[in-house]
Amino acid sequence: MPRTPNANASRPSTAKIAASKPEMRFRLRVTAGDAIAIGPGKIALIEAIAKTGSITSAAKSLDMSYRRAWLLLDDLNRSLKKPAVDSAKGGRDGGGSQVTEAGMQLITLYREIEVTAARACRTEVSRLLRMLVR
Amino acid sequence: MPRTPNANASRPSTAKIAASKPEMRFRLRVTAGDAIAIGPGKIALIEAIAKTGSITSAAKSLDMSYRRAWLLLDDLNRSLKKPAVDSAKGGRDGGGSQVTEAGMQLITLYREIEVTAARACRTEVSRLLRMLVR
Repeated sequence: MPRTPNANASRPSTAKIAASKPEMRFRLRVTAGDAIAIGPGKIALIEAIAKTGSITSAAKSLDMSYRRAWLLLDDLNRSLKKPAVDSAKGGRDGGGSQVTEAGMQLITLYREIEVTAARACRTEVSRLLRMLVR
Repeated sequence: MPRTPNANASRPSTAKIAASKPEMRFRLRVTAGDAIAIGPGKIALIEAIAKTGSITSAAKSLDMSYRRAWLLLDDLNRSLKKPAVDSAKGGRDGGGSQVTEAGMQLITLYREIEVTAARACRTEVSRLLRMLVR
């Protein structure tokens, strides 16, 4: 059996960790059974749609296929009482997509929760960060 | 281009979401550059070692290969000022592994942060949950 993990030997990941300041990130997900109804990927996607006005551009900006973006939105819209994104009807290139009022509310609430969570845990987080090699 | 995501059509994922009550989960990660120094996987692993007393059993209980568990621990120990896990020396089957005081502290702190975060955001979280189809 291999030896004990050893804090003294050197490996690339150590350099990486030492090189940049550690930071704490909260990720929140609303799960329903195994499915993730709302998570960081979907929120980033509707934020990108709000910014770019189209699913195509939003997907591109997130390095995501159009198909994947569409499926995520479809899933998100189904989980919500009111859809987060409206797409204009139109031909092949016609119509953009718009984040609805419910969608904007969702973004705001999600980001607020992240900020509130981080603020509430500041002390504990800095205690945890002090346990790390810098 | 495919049609608009549509909240009315039916697909299996809808049933899944409707079937079980949505719940909010926080996941927290300490990242340093691209590397995740501390995250839910490593915490679950040291908790399992604290419970089972060995990396092998802990890995098994998490459906993880011994090699992966060892690499995660090695990485974790390198990111910390004091290692989280000590392994007894011994032969092939010799010696178990023990979570150190620093490791126990890390678990406690990490779980405390999750609880504090969830408590701080209760109101916002329930507002978000109310946006979902139940």
